[in-house]
Amino acid sequence: MIDPDSNIVTKEAVAKDWLPRYTGTPVEEIGDYVLLTNFYAYVDQFAERFGCEITGQDRRMQAATNKDGLSIINFGIGSPNAANIMDMLTASKPKAVLFLGKCGGLKHSTEIGHFILPIGAIRGEGTSDDYLPQAVPALPSFKLHKFVSDKLCECELEYRTGVIYTTNRRVWEHDEKFRQKLKSYTPIGIDMETATIFIVGHANKIARGALLLVSDVPTTPDGIKTSDSDAAVSRNWAEIHLELGIDALTGIGEKGEEIKHLRYENQ
Amino acid sequence: MIDPDSNIVTKEAVAKDWLPRYTGTPVEEIGDYVLLTNFYAYVDQFAERFGCEITGQDRRMQAATNKDGLSIINFGIGSPNAANIMDMLTASKPKAVLFLGKCGGLKHSTEIGHFILPIGAIRGEGTSDDYLPQAVPALPSFKLHKFVSDKLCECELEYRTGVIYTTNRRVWEHDEKFRQKLKSYTPIGIDMETATIFIVGHANKIARGALLLVSDVPTTPDGIKTSDSDAAVSRNWAEIHLELGIDALTGIGEKGEEIKHLRYENQ
Amino acid sequence: MIDPDSNIVTKEAVAKDWLPRYTGTPVEEIGDYVLLTNFYAYVDQFAERFGCEITGQDRRMQAATNKDGLSIINFGIGSPNAANIMDMLTASKPKAVLFLGKCGGLKHSTEIGHFILPIGAIRGEGTSDDYLPQAVPALPSFKLHKFVSDKLCECELEYRTGVIYTTNRRVWEHDEKFRQKLKSYTPIGIDMETATIFIVGHANKIARGALLLVSDVPTTPDGIKTSDSDAAVSRNWAEIHLELGIDALTGIGEKGEEIKHLRYENQ
Repeated sequence: MIDPDSNIVTKEAVAKDWLPRYTGTPVEEIGDYVLLTNFYAYVDQFAERFGCEITGQDRRMQAATNKDGLSIINFGIGSPNAANIMDMLTASKPKAVLFLGKCGGLKHSTEIGHFILPIGAIRGEGTSDDYLPQAVPALPSFKLHKFVSDKLCECELEYRTGVIYTTNRRVWEHDEKFRQKLKSYTPIGIDMETATIFIVGHANKIARGALLLVSDVPTTPDGIKTSDSDAAVSRNWAEIHLELGIDALTGIGEKGEEIKHLRYENQ
Repeated sequence: MIDPDSNIVTKEAVAKDWLPRYTGTPVEEIGDYVLLTNFYAYVDQFAERFGCEITGQDRRMQAATNKDGLSIINFGIGSPNAANIMDMLTASKPKAVLFLGKCGGLKHSTEIGHFILPIGAIRGEGTSDDYLPQAVPALPSFKLHKFVSDKLCECELEYRTGVIYTTNRRVWEHDEKFRQKLKSYTPIGIDMETATIFIVGHANKIARGALLLVSDVPTTPDGIKTSDSDAAVSRNWAEIHLELGIDALTGIGEKGEEIKHLRYENQ
Repeated sequence: MIDPDSNIVTKEAVAKDWLPRYTGTPVEEIGDYVLLTNFYAYVDQFAERFGCEITGQDRRMQAATNKDGLSIINFGIGSPNAANIMDMLTASKPKAVLFLGKCGGLKHSTEIGHFILPIGAIRGEGTSDDYLPQAVPALPSFKLHKFVSDKLCECELEYRTGVIYTTNRRVWEHDEKFRQKLKSYTPIGIDMETATIFIVGHANKIARGALLLVSDVPTTPDGIKTSDSDAAVSRNWAEIHLELGIDALTGIGEKGEEIKHLRYENQ
């Protein structure tokens, strides 16, 4: 095997080459504030609202940036893609990144269409052990979440807080052992990216948060996501989800005091 | 938390609903033989060659099926997506699945454009511990690989065999600790899906294989994949890569003896 | 205690001294192709068939070599002896080594007298962790197995492929915990040498394979090996087992293309 010491490139160099390669967008065009999504429709809606161009249509990830320096990137599904975008964003050093994701609700109190502002995420299988030891919890930047929660209150929207279980696993609803393990962890929801975005953001000193929309309740009767249910969630809740994200990251850029404080969130 | 025992659905029911939801393709239209790819261009090229329709243009995964019952599916990047498609394919019970992927070469003897027929894959972080214990190796179906290797010999194409290291990790080239660990495992290449396709295929009793194209040599000077190098690999090698996959899975369907033997590969 | 730094000998020097010491055979008399067996009877049968001498009658291991440069060595039972012979063979650098072993069948589909061509082996307790990290799977050389499978097909013999569990443990049939663990690993058979031959072969860059004969089915009623059942297996199947091994390693020496390809199998 080739000598592992022979060619130490810097992470910065890789990130600077890869961010444009994946998004079809020059590094300097990525805004200071970044919304992350798994849904092309969110990018489309964003571009329409602000009359801006969508880049990366022929790439892995699509992006759009408005005149206020707010970007949105559709990075795909799962921890590998989530870790990758959080690594590549070290090239543009954003001031804050907010993930607008969907999750499965796991509590009686969580219903489809609810918003969850996770206080932490459990690093299930496949969520970035190479970045920091397993004992380090995957957490959002507090002041970013505080700001998002203020926005939710202003809009008179209810939200839940709690811990998300993040895993590589998709089809698990039939797996009794997995369900028991999940129960023992007492999470409020389950998804595939949040822990990874938090822990890689922490490792890379990027302020990060997540505002999740409950799109299914997989452990209740008829609660597993299906074609019909998913379409209904998108129809009813996706627009307000994106609006909240835009509002939060736009507002935070306008408030000098908050921005100043944000740098302490990096660690 | 909701009682984990309250709603045990079958995996089959989930797979039957999700396969069409993800691919925009009815279960019965997926062929007996399936090529998996991470590249939309492969699906496009396949559809053009056989004059067949691409389904799922508005979905996560795109698919096309020719008149011989051979399908191709672009399932995306990374282990979560790889495990998901291998779970969803239990709905259509394909006779064989061949992954046409790209990998990074890790040996002096592997150069860009070489083909690798992996004899096994190391289940690095994020590659499906929930399916089978870590001690179970991630292996391809022998008779499928035997058939693919015959095709390579017929075309007078050289190929390498060896072990692939599969990981969730993307940007690792700068990470000395990761590189040392990688070296101790002596793999011939590194990718993000092969071990997952093998182990989930084993768990789901689906005959599976992988024909990988070396698209970069990340541990040599100037070897990390860049926009330019990736385009060059695609231009020169992608067409023959897809052709080999089509040939192999078409040929195997025509040879009764091989099909009969394939069932023993399930375990 | 002896100073650990005082006398660093090379592995090559030890192997060159030990191979004749263990087998009673000069290094240069060992052929380019080597059959490994646990049975003196196989060596005896081989010597009779080719009219060649048996060396090492007064040693730990007995060997015989025919005029085509094919050797057979009875190395004894278990991983320690298997690792030892695979280390000692680095002295003669054989082009390929094929283990003709017996295993216990663990599937409904495996019956006494069936042949198994293992696609890999699980490194159970005692099977050579000192050679390579546990994450590295124990695998045969693909092109050697491809050739052996062609021979089986030519002879119109059915064979199974699958994973072998290799362990130091002998008497385990009564041990419920061990049986449960074994079941969770889903192996097709259990033996005491295959994983060790594969992993030490990999570490030593020796092309290696295994053709196993199912000699008992230990998890079914009356399936545990007894003197009578073992004699029956030997009577019926041992001769064809050895013939297949001879055919495969003789044929592979005659086919230039295959030999050339074999060098890639070393890793």
